[in-house]
Formats: sequence, structure tokens, C-alpha cells
Amino acid sequence: MSALRVLVWNEGRHEKQDEAVGRVYPNGLHGAIADGLREAGFEVRTAVLDEPEHGLTEDALAQTDVLLWWGHKAHEDVRDEIVDRVQARVLAGMGLIVLHSAHFSKIFKRLMGTTCNLKWREIGEKERVWVVNPAHPIADGLPDQFVIPHEEMYGEPFGIPEPDSLVFISWFAGGEVFRSGCCYYRGQGKVFYFRPGHETFPTYYQAEVRQVLNNAVRWAAPTNGPGVPVVHVHEPLEDVPVWRG
Amino acid sequence: MSALRVLVWNEGRHEKQDEAVGRVYPNGLHGAIADGLREAGFEVRTAVLDEPEHGLTEDALAQTDVLLWWGHKAHEDVRDEIVDRVQARVLAGMGLIVLHSAHFSKIFKRLMGTTCNLKWREIGEKERVWVVNPAHPIADGLPDQFVIPHEEMYGEPFGIPEPDSLVFISWFAGGEVFRSGCCYYRGQGKVFYFRPGHETFPTYYQAEVRQVLNNAVRWAAPTNGPGVPVVHVHEPLEDVPVWRG
Amino acid sequence: MSALRVLVWNEGRHEKQDEAVGRVYPNGLHGAIADGLREAGFEVRTAVLDEPEHGLTEDALAQTDVLLWWGHKAHEDVRDEIVDRVQARVLAGMGLIVLHSAHFSKIFKRLMGTTCNLKWREIGEKERVWVVNPAHPIADGLPDQFVIPHEEMYGEPFGIPEPDSLVFISWFAGGEVFRSGCCYYRGQGKVFYFRPGHETFPTYYQAEVRQVLNNAVRWAAPTNGPGVPVVHVHEPLEDVPVWRG
Amino acid sequence: MSALRVLVWNEGRHEKQDEAVGRVYPNGLHGAIADGLREAGFEVRTAVLDEPEHGLTEDALAQTDVLLWWGHKAHEDVRDEIVDRVQARVLAGMGLIVLHSAHFSKIFKRLMGTTCNLKWREIGEKERVWVVNPAHPIADGLPDQFVIPHEEMYGEPFGIPEPDSLVFISWFAGGEVFRSGCCYYRGQGKVFYFRPGHETFPTYYQAEVRQVLNNAVRWAAPTNGPGVPVVHVHEPLEDVPVWRG
Repeated sequence: MSALRVLVWNEGRHEKQDEAVGRVYPNGLHGAIADGLREAGFEVRTAVLDEPEHGLTEDALAQTDVLLWWGHKAHEDVRDEIVDRVQARVLAGMGLIVLHSAHFSKIFKRLMGTTCNLKWREIGEKERVWVVNPAHPIADGLPDQFVIPHEEMYGEPFGIPEPDSLVFISWFAGGEVFRSGCCYYRGQGKVFYFRPGHETFPTYYQAEVRQVLNNAVRWAAPTNGPGVPVVHVHEPLEDVPVWRG
Repeated sequence: MSALRVLVWNEGRHEKQDEAVGRVYPNGLHGAIADGLREAGFEVRTAVLDEPEHGLTEDALAQTDVLLWWGHKAHEDVRDEIVDRVQARVLAGMGLIVLHSAHFSKIFKRLMGTTCNLKWREIGEKERVWVVNPAHPIADGLPDQFVIPHEEMYGEPFGIPEPDSLVFISWFAGGEVFRSGCCYYRGQGKVFYFRPGHETFPTYYQAEVRQVLNNAVRWAAPTNGPGVPVVHVHEPLEDVPVWRG
Repeated sequence: MSALRVLVWNEGRHEKQDEAVGRVYPNGLHGAIADGLREAGFEVRTAVLDEPEHGLTEDALAQTDVLLWWGHKAHEDVRDEIVDRVQARVLAGMGLIVLHSAHFSKIFKRLMGTTCNLKWREIGEKERVWVVNPAHPIADGLPDQFVIPHEEMYGEPFGIPEPDSLVFISWFAGGEVFRSGCCYYRGQGKVFYFRPGHETFPTYYQAEVRQVLNNAVRWAAPTNGPGVPVVHVHEPLEDVPVWRG
Repeated sequence: MSALRVLVWNEGRHEKQDEAVGRVYPNGLHGAIADGLREAGFEVRTAVLDEPEHGLTEDALAQTDVLLWWGHKAHEDVRDEIVDRVQARVLAGMGLIVLHSAHFSKIFKRLMGTTCNLKWREIGEKERVWVVNPAHPIADGLPDQFVIPHEEMYGEPFGIPEPDSLVFISWFAGGEVFRSGCCYYRGQGKVFYFRPGHETFPTYYQAEVRQVLNNAVRWAAPTNGPGVPVVHVHEPLEDVPVWRG
């Protein structure tokens, strides 16, 4: 079996415009995320918003098994026709892993059909990520919880559809909880939302977070199920008379 | 408790343009649907596509607890800003019941995030609607299955998210099956998709179908849960020091 | 519509054997729970473990729409044939609301098929109950979260099947989270697990907790769906030749 | 990665007592099922009811990643302590694939908590198995539907909990439908129910059926998530004062 082909997409602006972020992620958030995935043996490329077609050409997507998406301040700069293209690819089987503030990305809101609203607070408080579905492959190799020392808080109610599987719930020192690992089937594709990963914290260097992303890529990998076309079936499969009213 | 306020929305063009449809539904599909709901004691109004703002003004929606939606040939004529408005109302708690060919309506596709594709065939074959969740309130008062003598066929795979509850599965004489009763939570609102109801068949006069719609209105009625706003929570609920990096 | 008939079942031993519990619940946990339900207009009776047949005679159950169950230290004293009887009634449509330490009751473990294991700690820490499905009728009338000043902690992973709907998640001061409001369909019946309610704390006098129980009784009320018998259907519904091999 | 270790368990009595079954399955149902799995590269063993401890010793289970279970006429002969043992292993991570008439096995009913009742008819009618979740790995490599020329019919309502994922729905010539491929998470383990496989039909030689079982073994394979113990956590994870009442 050849390696899964992963594309890590990042807005890529915070790192250039905000010195503090650049210090934490000198190779960009995408660089740190890609490093973790490469260590796991995946074939990893990266792309950023400011490339032509946002780096998400038909060709690039055709060579992608699983796409990771980090965005925050420039959701509106993502062109609608590129969102259409990504959505079509997900519904045709490409895995999609939506990271942190990309809960407000066009592609995630498009696939959820809801506001994706939430509460947020930036005081660098402690987060504990608890496993609530220990049988799920995205929990593979994880302890029952792990701590992220400093993170942005996201709090419920989170304006998403009920996940098809809920894998993680986060606890925050300031008093909130959050559904942090949410699995969805959409068409022939799989979507995973993972909460942690604020740009000012070294979250994507943390071993447990990398384990989650590795597991998620494997879970979201395309499988070869039947398509979901619209079809006018003129002839019945079984012998049925046409009714003349 | 005052009666639930129901708005039955219909495209309303088939009935005028196609004599055969007009014979089956002389008062429109909305008229027949509304009659069934009125018998159940709901306060029912109707609206059609060709009214100003499609009859879906802010005011009309503000007075609606549950909206039923029938559309088929003119999905594209529904203006996007009206779809935005209806979506916002659903996410704020208004119930939505999506009927038959409205699987391809803008509002349903918007709330699902998927293609909503399916197979279809129009030979007037027999449909059997089977209850698969007998505990669900939408199955109240129903036998384990009922027959619709002649209907359009819809077949799987149906390009929808996995329902939060699946209440009905249809059997078709020609060989297909279909998830015919699908419940979804979206924001503060509830959405129910119900498959039967082709414009050339007297489906909406059938007692079991009316029972389903009555049950669905009760299930989809707004409840007064908390809102799902986006909120910047500046202060933690618990006493947590701000981290200075 | 006549009032729903509710039976509040309690082990009823803590209150007699432990003075501290008796002070908090002088009329028993069942007494306090029943009071809250009576205020909401339900027709409420109570029963305790030490009554003949644990107060759960065929006749008592036949007159019950929704059964609430509180147990803790004497799960093993509940006779298996009574558990069989309650299970059969739930599968035939009676609602069941399982409270706090009754996660380890025979009836809940029987209906879940899992260990129902969890973490626990008794230091009277603060609990925050967050609504995560604002559209669910059990969240009716609730704010986005409410505080229980002192409670026993229950922590994940909780050994239950994924809920059909997850309504509440609890945050605990000591660092844990818990799926605190879990809905299940079982046969023709509905089951709701609600976490709070330790015997040494006045939880069942709290307005939000009473609101949850009132909502849960309404949600779990029997509906008249089809039965789920085992049936040898000798004749096909459709005309199909018998195959002779 | 070493091969998954699969144990195919079969009652193994029909084949000996009923000549017609012996002709279809000369090496037993387990033999045919095992052959298909071996072709896919799994390490496969078999066991039958009449072996000591039904062939399900602690040691045998300890060496099993995924257990397949076929039973029909002798469910009551399976000893309860062996059922306890299998259940404990499933909840600790072993995959379980429940086949056809094993819907009434003790182990399946135990893990579901429901009656698992259904309708049935034995006229050798045609079954069509439709894929309804094309993204699910158990649908890998399958067309949108496949035909089993002659099978026993199973019909809804099927007395199971709502599946965590529903992969297949069957259509029967005689008029019924059935949820034929049902996924459940239970503890650290995964359970898949697959409907087809009556003892008098050559179903387990059919390519699509073998593909489903191969996919199901891979999906149900153990992953190394955290355990689900009951734990008295004496000390809080966070610094919280003990409340003194």
C-alpha cells in the first residue's frame, strides 16, 4: 500500500504579520503540522491562501487523499469557486480535517449547514482533552486525557450538527467544555473537526496532538464506496407494470 | 397552550401549468397539505413562490412555528436572500418539514451541506413505508407499515448526512429502498425530511401521510433552549490567571 | 389530555441509614424528586426497594407512563425478575429516567449492554452543566449552562453506548468532563440518563434540575408506535413465487 | 503489520443434522466463511459450539482480534459464563461481527439491551442489499447494490438500538425492508451486525458478501484507545478545596 497523500492547507498570514506567531511557527502552522504527518510516513505537501487558486487547483486536489485546513482571519478571502471545488472533492471521497479556528471557514460551514458559532476567550488557560469514545480509531494510542498547557478557549454551545461520532470533549480551566473531536460522513467523504491549535501556542508540536492528526488522516482516507449521483432510472430493476393512472 | 402556527409553503406552479396535477390538487398541493393540518387543530396558513418575497417575509416567518416546504421545478427561482432568512429562522428554532422533491430545494441543501442526490423513476409503482424507530414521536399512531398505491420512486444512495434519527424506510416495487423519514437537529431548530408526495398522485389525502405530517409538526415545534451566538467571553467563569507567555 | 403518570423509584436506604442524607432529604430522595414533578402537573407516585416486589408490581408498572430510578448501594438487592419486568415495559413504551448513581443499576446496564463504568470523586466540587443540543426538548427553558455548587464528580470515559442525542456535558472544578444528559431509543421506549443527584447534596431542590426532569418526563412519555414482535410471516406481502431450490 | 487474527465461531449443528445444509456447506458455515477471510490474507481459525468451552477459552479469545458469530437453533446452549467472557472481551476491544440469525444470540442481545426481534419468512425470495453510507469503510469496493438471488427474509421493525452507523438496507421481493449492516461502538470494541447468511443458501460463497466481511474485519479490528475502568479518583487533577458541608 502506497503512502496516503496529505495536503496541509494554511491561511499563512498570521505567521507573516504577527511576530509572536512567527516565533512559535517559523515555518508556518502548515510547516509544523506537515512535519508531524511526515514523521508518521504520509506523503505530505502544503499550500497557502496566497498561492494561485489558493494552492487548491483541480490537479492538486486530484492528488490529495486527505486535506487539512487551518484558517482564521481571512476566511472571506477564500474564493467561492474554490470552496465549491473542495466541497465537491470531499463529497466524492477526499478526507477533510478542519482545524481550530477553521470552524468558521467557508468549507466547514458549507458542509455543516449551521452557524458553527461558539464562545471564545484568549487568556492562555489550560485545556484537558478527554477521550469519550475509546473504540474510535482516532483515539488510537491515546491516554484517557491529555493536557495542553496553554490554549485559546472554545466553549459550548457549538453550532454544529450532532457529530456522527464524538471522540473528544475538552475541559477548560475557566469553566467551559467543548466537543473537540467531531466525525462526520458527507457523501463519499469523511470530515473530522479538531479543536486545538491556536496560532500563538506550540500546540502542533505536542505529541498527543500529532497522534490525533495521524489517526485522523488514516480514518479520513478515501474508501472506494459507490458514488452518489442523481440518476433517472427509466427501467425498474424488478418487473413492474407502468401505471397508467 | 395555544395552537402551533404552521405555514405551508408550495412552489405552486405545477398545479397551474399541468392539468393532470390541477385535477389531483385543485386547491394546490399546499391546499391539501393545509387541510390535513387544520383537521389536527393547528393554525395553518399557506404561501407560494409567486407572492412578494415568496410569501416568506420577516413578519410571516416571525409568526411561524413550523414551516412545511414543497418545491420541484423552480428551486432556482427561490431568491438566495430568502433562503438565508429561512435558514436563520430554522437555526433560531423554527421547525422545518421538507417534502418530497424539496430534497433539491436550496434550503434543504443548505442545511445538509451535501448534494441530496438520489435515484428516481416515475412509473407510478407501489411504495411501502416501514417504521424503523417505533419509539419516535413521528411514528405515533402508525402501523408497522403502510402502502401508498402509486408514487414516484426515490432510491438510495441518498446524498444526505446520516439522520440524527431515522424513522421510516420505503420499499419500492421496482427494487429500490429509501430513507424516507429523516430527523435532524440544526442549531436551535429541528428539520424533518419526508419522502412521499409526488404532484401527480393523491398522496397528501392519505390518512397515514397526514398522520405523519401532524406528528412531524408537533416534533419540530420550537422549544425554548439557549441560543447559539458567537461570544467573546472576556472574563473566565472560574478564577484563572491570565497567562503572559 | 390527562396528566402523565410518573412513578419515582428510589432505593430509599441512604436516607434511613445515614443521618446526613436524612437531613438533606427528610422525605427521601424520591420525596424531593416527586415534589418537583407534582409542581409541574404530573400525576406522581413513589416506590422504594423494600416494598413488596420493590413496589414495581405488574399493576404499578401498567399505570406508569414514565419511571424515574435512583439507586446506589443496593443495586444487587433488586431482583432479576423485577428487572426483566421493567425492561420489558420500557421496550414496550414506558419512559425511563435513570438518575446519577443508577448508572450502575441492573436495569440501566441491561439496557445499555456495557459496563457503565466511570470515574468518581467525592469532594463536593463545583459542577457546571452545559447544554450542547439547544434544539432538544430536554433543554427547553434552560440557560446555556447552570451551576450545581457542590456535587460528586463523575468523569469520562463513561462506559455507555454513544447516545442517540447528547443534551448536556458537565464540567467539574477538579478537571473532568462528563456526558451528563444522554437520550436513547430502546424498542418502543425512550431512556434518559441524567448525571446530577448525589444523596448528600440538595441537587433535587434546584430549579434547573427540576426543569430538566420535567422536560425529560415529557420527552420520555410513551407514544403509540407499532410494536416490535417476532413474527413468522408465512405469506409474502407481494406476489412472489416460493423458490423450490 | 502482522495479519489480523480472526476467529469464526459457528454453532455447527445444522450442517450435521440437516442434509440439505450439509450439501451447501460441506465444511460447515464456518468453513466457508473462513475460506473467504483467508483469501483476504487474515489469519483465520474456527470454533464450534460443541468444543470444550465452545472453543472460546480465555486463551483462544486472547489470541483473537475479531470474532465472527453464526448461531441459530442452539442459542440457549451457549453457557452464560462464556457469554460473559466474550462480552468482556468485546468491551475491552475485540471486534465482533454478528451474522444473520445470531441476531438472537445471547451475546448480541446482551450487547444491544433490546429484544432484537424481527419478522422472518423462508420462501427463498430475492434480496437486494443497498449501500446507504458510501463513505463507510465497510462499503469499500462495493457497487451501490448487489443481489442475493435467494435468501430468508428479515423484516422491520428490527428491535435494535439505532446503529451508530447504518451501512446497508435490504430490499426483499416479498415487500419488506431491513437494516442489514449496523455498526456499534461498545466500550473499547466495535460490533457489526450483517443480515444475510441463511444456512440453506450459498450466500457465504458470494463475492460481495465476502467483500463485506473482509471490510468488516478491518473496521472492527482493535485499536489501542484508553480503557474504561471504574476508578475512585481520590485527588482532583486541579487544585480544588475539599468542601466540608
